Amino acid sequence: MTRGRFIVFDGVEGSGKSTQMPRVARWIRDRHGEPVTTREPGGTALAEEIRRVALEDHDEPLPKTAELLLMFAARSVHLNNRIWPALQAGHWVLCDRFVDASFAYQGAGQGLPSHDIEQLETMVVGTQQPDCVFLFDLPVEVLVQRVAQRGNADRFDRAETDFHARVRTMYLERAQRRPERYAIIDATASVESMTRTICDELERRFAG
Amino acid sequence: MTRGRFIVFDGVEGSGKSTQMPRVARWIRDRHGEPVTTREPGGTALAEEIRRVALEDHDEPLPKTAELLLMFAARSVHLNNRIWPALQAGHWVLCDRFVDASFAYQGAGQGLPSHDIEQLETMVVGTQQPDCVFLFDLPVEVLVQRVAQRGNADRFDRAETDFHARVRTMYLERAQRRPERYAIIDATASVESMTRTICDELERRFAG
Ligand SMILES: Nc1ncnc2c1ncn2[C@@H]1O[C@H](COP(=O)(O)OP(=O)(O)O)[C@@H](O)[C@H]1O
Ligand SMILES: Nc1ncnc2c1ncn2[C@@H]1O[C@H](COP(=O)(O)OP(=O)(O)O)[C@@H](O)[C@H]1O
Ligand SMILES: [Mg+2]
Ligand SMILES: [Mg+2]
Repeated sequence: MTRGRFIVFDGVEGSGKSTQMPRVARWIRDRHGEPVTTREPGGTALAEEIRRVALEDHDEPLPKTAELLLMFAARSVHLNNRIWPALQAGHWVLCDRFVDASFAYQGAGQGLPSHDIEQLETMVVGTQQPDCVFLFDLPVEVLVQRVAQRGNADRFDRAETDFHARVRTMYLERAQRRPERYAIIDATASVESMTRTICDELERRFAG
Repeated sequence: MTRGRFIVFDGVEGSGKSTQMPRVARWIRDRHGEPVTTREPGGTALAEEIRRVALEDHDEPLPKTAELLLMFAARSVHLNNRIWPALQAGHWVLCDRFVDASFAYQGAGQGLPSHDIEQLETMVVGTQQPDCVFLFDLPVEVLVQRVAQRGNADRFDRAETDFHARVRTMYLERAQRRPERYAIIDATASVESMTRTICDELERRFAG
């Protein structure tokens, strides 16, 4: 039994990850059997429980470093209990967000050192890296428009715009550094065009 | 306001940490005001909640690395929300167990790499290290006797004896490497003699 492929969709909120998930899953199903679709943070009951502790309101502050450790603890559970067993059983796995989101949001966004996140990545993920990460790239202006259209009428203030610009830059830097693992997808393209680009890339990388 | 001293009692189960805690607290109270006594893992409501997730039974396994991350997340909460505020308010803090217990039990005992634990220590504790760690040292034979006397009639099997021997060795190695921070206390001495040794050491290190 050859192990399945571990595929990640990552990128900012509103870049079309959830929209593409069932479309790409259909393409995989027709060629490689039923894929496992999953998402971070979460993915198993225990990972969700850890996540809940990280997100709940408490009577005391949760230090940023503690939040980062909880996120990686949940990721360790998700990887060991769900993703890796599925891959070893021969299933392809499509995961909505993975390690890059930690570098983008907790690193570039909230200011935690990349160095700490890298060490946690080595500890938790090690060599169990995705075979391909699709980075859904969206200019901050388009992100702002999509969020506004979702019914959230508030425009982003300057601090939020800066935050999203830092997040986008970190995603792009990481994807550009490793073209053998990452594929950057223009998320301003049409839904159909994005699906075609992603599936062509999967065909090109993992044919046969 | 000078900050208080951060004092840790560490060492194997049954080495007398809980017995010494109120005795040494009394000595501190008479000289430096009311100390804060606390313990790991735990120490705040949120830290206890994180610990509960780590110790509870679940329908899926908790990977060892995830457990280690949860323990350090709880430690980050304890250090930021309880220990450090107390020290900065001028209180002495007496803490039952700290980082050394992770190196001893999860590292030497369970086989997690010291390297990972060191990185987490740097991330979570950084320069907020204890001013003095008292290592309560007990030969494994005496540990076995004390556990038997506590009503647990079972003798340790070979694997458990080996486990405790590795734990003890790791504690001793860490203490011997840093005499400026650690003091090794012979835990086979009498209760009174141990209290005297600890308080003399505190006097010698932090007089005036
Ligand atoms: N290619 C696209 N072009 C225009 N709008 C899109 C596109 N893909 C998704 N959308 C819309 O953008 C919003 C966010 O899409 P979604 O798939 O939920 O993104 P994500 O899961 O990355 O947050 C939704 O309203 C969706 O209909
Ligand atoms: N110095 C000592 N000599 C002999 N027995 C002791 C001494 N100190 C504690 N004990 C006994 O050993 C057991 C464990 O002590 P405890 O203080 O609970 O250890 P710890 O908190 O390190 O697990 C208790 O039964 C206690 O009465
Ligand atoms: Mg989504
Ligand atoms: Mg005790």
